[in-house]
Amino acid sequence: MSFLDSEFFQPLYEALESGHPDEIQTAASSYNAADLADFIEYTGAEDDAKGLALLQSLPADQQAKVFGYIEPDMQKILARLIPKGALAGIVTDMSADERADFFNLLDENQQHALFQSLASREREDLLRLASFEEGTAGAIMTSDYAVVSSGMTVASALSLLRNTAPDKETIYQAYVVDKSHKLLGAISLRNLIISAPGALVDSLMATGLVFTRTDTEQEEVARLISRYDLLALPIVDDDERLVGIVTYDDAMDVAEAEATEDMHKGATVGRLDTSFKTASPFSLYRSRVQWLVILVFGNIFTGAGIAYFEQTISAHIALLFFMPLLVASAGNAGAQSATLMIRGMATGDVTTRDWGMLLGKDILVATGLGLTMALAVMVIGLFRASPAIAMVVSITMVTVVLMGSVIGMLLPFLLDKLKFDPATASTPLITTIADVSGVLIYFSIATAVLGLG
Amino acid sequence: MSFLDSEFFQPLYEALESGHPDEIQTAASSYNAADLADFIEYTGAEDDAKGLALLQSLPADQQAKVFGYIEPDMQKILARLIPKGALAGIVTDMSADERADFFNLLDENQQHALFQSLASREREDLLRLASFEEGTAGAIMTSDYAVVSSGMTVASALSLLRNTAPDKETIYQAYVVDKSHKLLGAISLRNLIISAPGALVDSLMATGLVFTRTDTEQEEVARLISRYDLLALPIVDDDERLVGIVTYDDAMDVAEAEATEDMHKGATVGRLDTSFKTASPFSLYRSRVQWLVILVFGNIFTGAGIAYFEQTISAHIALLFFMPLLVASAGNAGAQSATLMIRGMATGDVTTRDWGMLLGKDILVATGLGLTMALAVMVIGLFRASPAIAMVVSITMVTVVLMGSVIGMLLPFLLDKLKFDPATASTPLITTIADVSGVLIYFSIATAVLGLG
Repeated sequence: MSFLDSEFFQPLYEALESGHPDEIQTAASSYNAADLADFIEYTGAEDDAKGLALLQSLPADQQAKVFGYIEPDMQKILARLIPKGALAGIVTDMSADERADFFNLLDENQQHALFQSLASREREDLLRLASFEEGTAGAIMTSDYAVVSSGMTVASALSLLRNTAPDKETIYQAYVVDKSHKLLGAISLRNLIISAPGALVDSLMATGLVFTRTDTEQEEVARLISRYDLLALPIVDDDERLVGIVTYDDAMDVAEAEATEDMHKGATVGRLDTSFKTASPFSLYRSRVQWLVILVFGNIFTGAGIAYFEQTISAHIALLFFMPLLVASAGNAGAQSATLMIRGMATGDVTTRDWGMLLGKDILVATGLGLTMALAVMVIGLFRASPAIAMVVSITMVTVVLMGSVIGMLLPFLLDKLKFDPATASTPLITTIADVSGVLIYFSIATAVLGLG
Repeated sequence: MSFLDSEFFQPLYEALESGHPDEIQTAASSYNAADLADFIEYTGAEDDAKGLALLQSLPADQQAKVFGYIEPDMQKILARLIPKGALAGIVTDMSADERADFFNLLDENQQHALFQSLASREREDLLRLASFEEGTAGAIMTSDYAVVSSGMTVASALSLLRNTAPDKETIYQAYVVDKSHKLLGAISLRNLIISAPGALVDSLMATGLVFTRTDTEQEEVARLISRYDLLALPIVDDDERLVGIVTYDDAMDVAEAEATEDMHKGATVGRLDTSFKTASPFSLYRSRVQWLVILVFGNIFTGAGIAYFEQTISAHIALLFFMPLLVASAGNAGAQSATLMIRGMATGDVTTRDWGMLLGKDILVATGLGLTMALAVMVIGLFRASPAIAMVVSITMVTVVLMGSVIGMLLPFLLDKLKFDPATASTPLITTIADVSGVLIYFSIATAVLGLG
């Protein structure tokens, strides 16, 4: 079932057509927040007023939840339409991390107006979260976590959590801190409810927690949460004081966004601020044109390589027939090696330390692949051209497949060492490099074996 | 910090060298289960006995947890080394889904022996979970979920959860079922602890739950959990009876594995059963050779296309110079469109319904890209060859970039319609198709404009 089937949203459409707030609210109550957000995005693209009417018909806490799921572009549009007081209400009810993301979308005047209408607690939160660099743990963490103090009993910890629960992103895991808010350990709600009421939290808490600092990259945060199956990862400042948590659902979003970015990079598509579906033609153009033009200039070298061997080619025009399959094979083998390497590095499976071992294994594999494919082209060469040309294409095939694979292994590693994203070693880039090298190797071997006629 | 730095594991190495079980247990207690599993995998590769000694030194519940994190290959090795009774103990303590995965690794004799030594509850669980098809919700779900019955009070529900908690994968969300185990709703532990003890769970439970069936594909399960920010997704049978749950941590693993598989497919790397790092050279060879050979045959057509236009090429040998950059640009533009489309489909951002709109947008973007690049090659053509050739290459560039993009949009969509994985429309496949078409278009235009000399 697609969530955007009009049938699925039919009751909501009808209620909105009727224009009665009660009917709208009743219809809306049977949908999830994520679905309502989708609905607002899609109807809003045609008719802002409908999206706004739906949002305003929802109960206050639901408004904030739905608003948090809406894509940035539509959030910006709604921010202009919603009355100032109502917007402040929604923003106050949003989770701290979503609030900070939304705040960063607004222009200076809007930020100023919104800031004035918030309570001091939310203001401080905003200022703190907004101060961290984009893409770090600090920027994606939330300050809505549950804490209990060292020395509390289970009963008082439970009662504290019961009273503060509705405000917190997750209370399933409470953090135990000392007087200076230094992180000592964690205690799960599960542990609290099965323990004796009089026991001290200190005796029950788990120590040796996995945690990280505010400047850790968000990919690493997602990796830690996934690796250790955490509900949330505590984030500490330089003095090891607890300042926030990143929850598993945000980690899932980060992991998905990172995988998308890496796949796009793998095909030389630059960063898109919105999804492929909602991106404007111009932003798609911009994200694609840069590398296409760079690669055109790369391919001039391939053309120049061919031009350089014009004499050999003229003398043995049959060589041209084999050129595409030889250079393409080098590129394809290179793309395979590079992709295995890049994804291995992105998931944390492969570290720099492993590279020597993996290169050795790759050379073995590529030799096997090169020999298999040399056999195939030798048969074609014998059938289609001459034994001499069959020999040239076989030798070239082994050489270029090996070369392509080694380039594919080497390039992501070098980019990483030079502090670039390894995913920049995209398939088209590898193919272009393989094209140039492949043409030079092929015609050099051909000239050596066959002469100039 | 890399978790496999020898410094990080130094205390554990030393304790294992000493051979004292107490020392080993003390040293092990300061590591996470996931880290201990890594340690066992890496030392185990050289010295099985060390890994085994470490595992056996751990407390019973910790043994099962660490064992669940170990990669399949090493699990198989350990299964042969651990005494039968001890193995049954570990397997009994494992979570139901990990137990089923492990069971499926064993050969028939081992399965039989293990099965005999399990209690009847675990046997039934195993049989049920093992009966679902690989890659479906049924195969990744666990039967360790918490249920309360319709009609219970908050106090009795809490007491039930308190008593059953240690056995359950997660008690943060309890499912409310009727007498025939039909799923009615869910109640969070958070809601239970903040509600009046005498209230009925029915009045507090959330209804309109997101759930799915046992035969839903695991990618879709992961997508639902991520979309709705769920801790767990309930799985029901054909009679809407609750039979299991999939938890967020398993969904993260599925999403990561699916992204890896899609990226590998994007570079024509076939399915690997283990990670790139631990895969044997032969399994890497096997996963790569198939498409490389298929693409060699695809490229024969490109070669044949060039051979067909031999006369035109001989008459205007300068045309060869521009061939690589024209066909490469078609392939690169195609790879961009295909990757945007494939990833959009994989994340659920793009549905079949959107395709017409996206194709229209892509044609607009590709025309812009083609014109930009035509301008670049026209300059090169004027500088390097003649106005006539500059015209040929410019017209060709616009045509092939547009063609490449449309192929890139069309192919994933067609594959999906034909029930293949859209990710099969890999960059190398697109490049090969673009090569053939690009050569034919280029030399056809050239022959039409320039004649045969």
